[in-house]
Amino acid sequence: MELISSLKWRYATKRYNPAKKLLQEDLDKIIEAARLAPTSSGLQQFRIIVIKNQALKEKIVPIAWGQQIMSECSHILVFAAWDRYTEERIDEMYDFTTEERNLPKGRFSAYTDKLKSEYLPQTAEENFIHTAKQSYIGFGLAIAQAAALNIDSTPVEGFSADALDDLLGLKAKALRSVTILTLGYRDSENDWLAHLKKVRIPTEEFVIKYD
Amino acid sequence: MELISSLKWRYATKRYNPAKKLLQEDLDKIIEAARLAPTSSGLQQFRIIVIKNQALKEKIVPIAWGQQIMSECSHILVFAAWDRYTEERIDEMYDFTTEERNLPKGRFSAYTDKLKSEYLPQTAEENFIHTAKQSYIGFGLAIAQAAALNIDSTPVEGFSADALDDLLGLKAKALRSVTILTLGYRDSENDWLAHLKKVRIPTEEFVIKYD
Repeated sequence: MELISSLKWRYATKRYNPAKKLLQEDLDKIIEAARLAPTSSGLQQFRIIVIKNQALKEKIVPIAWGQQIMSECSHILVFAAWDRYTEERIDEMYDFTTEERNLPKGRFSAYTDKLKSEYLPQTAEENFIHTAKQSYIGFGLAIAQAAALNIDSTPVEGFSADALDDLLGLKAKALRSVTILTLGYRDSENDWLAHLKKVRIPTEEFVIKYD
Repeated sequence: MELISSLKWRYATKRYNPAKKLLQEDLDKIIEAARLAPTSSGLQQFRIIVIKNQALKEKIVPIAWGQQIMSECSHILVFAAWDRYTEERIDEMYDFTTEERNLPKGRFSAYTDKLKSEYLPQTAEENFIHTAKQSYIGFGLAIAQAAALNIDSTPVEGFSADALDDLLGLKAKALRSVTILTLGYRDSENDWLAHLKKVRIPTEEFVIKYD
């Protein structure tokens, strides 16, 4: 299916059929799409926590303002970004990059010095705003890949990030949760949103042209 | 082509063949993918400025730290987000939604009241961080759609947003630029990055699993 058709097909699913679970190979493709996402300076400032465990999913219901999709869905993906930039994180990523490309270590040191001089003087909060933004690109690609596989998903910002970080022990990993994507198969009969028209502003209003 | 294959094929193009321009129908698909992107509460907090005009593209080179891709590329897309939330913007979007869905006006007033009580007390800067994040989802989908069409693109954060806002008169539209996506066709011969391996951290490191 063309990407645009997939994007028209998808919607923010509000009820899942809890009996239908994702195939491992489909889940792997959704994660792979997010892993391939471009990020600022190629730093890959985010990770995905993949939750299949039912007891854990149920613990997320109250953290996500009681949304039942958290327990009904097949899998919960939590997109979590670096809590801040550090010299080590930047170096580690570029050392890995040079190694993978058979380039001499330090090949990009002028560039990494520039990154360090930009990010390290900032507050952790300023850093996190930037790393979190990168995670939204991967979030978008995961949504697109799920739709391309006819898998339903719900992009969610409505949860207590602090409580989720505590539950998942993300602070110890120097990560902070940004968004949640639930995955599964829609329960069309019981989902009030399943049959409503997708609404987007007209292209003429969405686009400003300079020909 | 499968989305994952497209994402493996793409890279942040550093040199374009200035003689090769996008077909209008391809450009339209890329914009449509971004338009279909999900956004927080469905507010569609961002717009795209589409720049084909060569003189204007050249004015963006110095604003984007001298990056020649700005003039070499076929089109520049500027992703710009609402500078802040307002009561009018939220109401306008929900009035449009109820109209499109043949629902009574005000059907979602409890929900829009909640949104207003959350966003309106925040500073404009806090609002903009949130609207900007939404634009990254559409940014990701535009990158994916371009790749699916074998069109090269470069995601760019490296530019002076203030100077670009001035050049494009975005302040008067209550928008602020967030990211740039250049589009075109790679000049493989002269692009140092065209032949280097794509580097991503291994899946085992990218994913934290709770089975």
